[in-house]
Amino acid sequence: MHTPDPDRLRYAADLDAIRAAAARIAPHAHRTPVLTSRTLDRMAGRSLFFKCEPFQIGGAFKFRGALNAVLCLDDETAARGVVTHSSGNYAQALTIAAGIRGIPAWVVMPDNAPRVKVAAVQGYGGTVVPCPPALRQQTADRVRAETGATYLPSYDHPDVIAGQGTCGLELFEQVPDLDAVVVPTGGGGLLSGVTLAFHHLSPGTRVYGAEPRGADDAARSRVAGRIIPQTAPDTIADGLRTSLGQHTWPVVRDLVADILTVEDDEIVAAMRLLMERLKLVVEPSGAIGLAVALSPAFRALPDAERVGIVLSGGNVDLAALPF
Amino acid sequence: MHTPDPDRLRYAADLDAIRAAAARIAPHAHRTPVLTSRTLDRMAGRSLFFKCEPFQIGGAFKFRGALNAVLCLDDETAARGVVTHSSGNYAQALTIAAGIRGIPAWVVMPDNAPRVKVAAVQGYGGTVVPCPPALRQQTADRVRAETGATYLPSYDHPDVIAGQGTCGLELFEQVPDLDAVVVPTGGGGLLSGVTLAFHHLSPGTRVYGAEPRGADDAARSRVAGRIIPQTAPDTIADGLRTSLGQHTWPVVRDLVADILTVEDDEIVAAMRLLMERLKLVVEPSGAIGLAVALSPAFRALPDAERVGIVLSGGNVDLAALPF
Repeated sequence: MHTPDPDRLRYAADLDAIRAAAARIAPHAHRTPVLTSRTLDRMAGRSLFFKCEPFQIGGAFKFRGALNAVLCLDDETAARGVVTHSSGNYAQALTIAAGIRGIPAWVVMPDNAPRVKVAAVQGYGGTVVPCPPALRQQTADRVRAETGATYLPSYDHPDVIAGQGTCGLELFEQVPDLDAVVVPTGGGGLLSGVTLAFHHLSPGTRVYGAEPRGADDAARSRVAGRIIPQTAPDTIADGLRTSLGQHTWPVVRDLVADILTVEDDEIVAAMRLLMERLKLVVEPSGAIGLAVALSPAFRALPDAERVGIVLSGGNVDLAALPF
Repeated sequence: MHTPDPDRLRYAADLDAIRAAAARIAPHAHRTPVLTSRTLDRMAGRSLFFKCEPFQIGGAFKFRGALNAVLCLDDETAARGVVTHSSGNYAQALTIAAGIRGIPAWVVMPDNAPRVKVAAVQGYGGTVVPCPPALRQQTADRVRAETGATYLPSYDHPDVIAGQGTCGLELFEQVPDLDAVVVPTGGGGLLSGVTLAFHHLSPGTRVYGAEPRGADDAARSRVAGRIIPQTAPDTIADGLRTSLGQHTWPVVRDLVADILTVEDDEIVAAMRLLMERLKLVVEPSGAIGLAVALSPAFRALPDAERVGIVLSGGNVDLAALPF
């Protein structure tokens, strides 16, 4: 047992919440392996430890938060189902999680979403609600009003963040003496969860956010000292185009060591290296951590011999590889 | 401790030899993870356990046997170095193993070998000896005569087979109650090693060889009751074009449950499924086990609920994916 956490009210999740999430999702989620590569170590000039979320259920870390949030609902609330809007990995993750609990899931998707993503949600038993891209939130609100389903956003929710924190908890248990961890940063759910886990378990480990330069709202928000929403993102990393939220921002502001940015060509090169060297299929959003680790800015950081890299997802259209 | 093995003289390796190999290579080799996929399980109608050798040093299982053979040499012999001929994964594996022991390695390669493979061996400190494709063995013999290096073939050698057996030993430890295991079959080094491991550790587990129909010498050899060399192989699975050898044939003849064959299009489909669903880059030779598991012949087998699939390697030219 650890002492009560004074940060409990300040941040989205404390260690108790993350540990409870880990116990909750353990029967269904994979404890993803950590892989290493001597070649990539040589290239980075560091020892890199890759936490492999492409192996998670649904192909990405999103399942952790989705399942924890679904399992946190009381029975009566859960029975009415869940609803979200997502055209990315969270759509599948929430649908699978709802299936595990045996409750309905509605997923609002833009009507121009790729057919394969629509089919994936439907394949897991979810109901896809198409809408014009600009009306996602309104459509989700309408579904909620009509069905009584609980709206579970893809990142800005304490139970989702606690679930993503289990990725950090596992990484700490698997590689206990990391100097630094690099985490892909979109809305900041994964970054917040992992940062909170290390904040409590290993305060000396610095957690860095990794952002595409074409969607660097977290970096700009830290400079400004307030949330700067991401408008007109321009990056291949489609999972990282979102803005920070009210639950993720305080962690990014206070506890994250820094936000480091890279260009899309560095992301693509990292994605290719991961396939060639680690033999792992990682999507651009998921590969950004290696891109950061190989960047001159990161290589110039002192005291970062042992570095955890969270590879966050592996859902790639093989017919459209960017190289 | 187990009792002395009556098969010791009959087959290339017994359990002692495989266990000794495991201890010998442990400081350097990866204990590769076993991955699962609910989607692939559904497609196969079985529970599949994928032993992931693409994560092995050098990107393939070959490192196990190469390192064991190199470490088995006495100091004086080792100091003169090792020589082999290979244009495949064994070339890199033996070079890396020699580097670990700090001894020279000569690798005879056909003079039309891909530049990237030549560079890989050289990058690990090996000396590439180019030759006309038909003169590989003669060239290796000449290098051996000139240098005093020990010739270590890629599969038909007891120490190599014992090393490959460590893959089976690990799989047994990771998933103890398998009904069947499917192993890619070229020269039969991996198949022999894995079969011998299970023969001793879990005699009820049937081990199947997986062969491309365009290089089905092991299947034909079993029918004939003698080694039928593979001539003019025609398959995308370039690691599986070789013939059985004197050390691998007795195991294939006596202890392997059966050899199952598939067409190249099934191999390519399996390779793609592994990238899409398991997020793993596997070369055609390495993916054949899944192709067999999904084949009608395998699906008709009784008593095979829990099936180990050895994914043997992941060295793929991403610029030339076959889909």
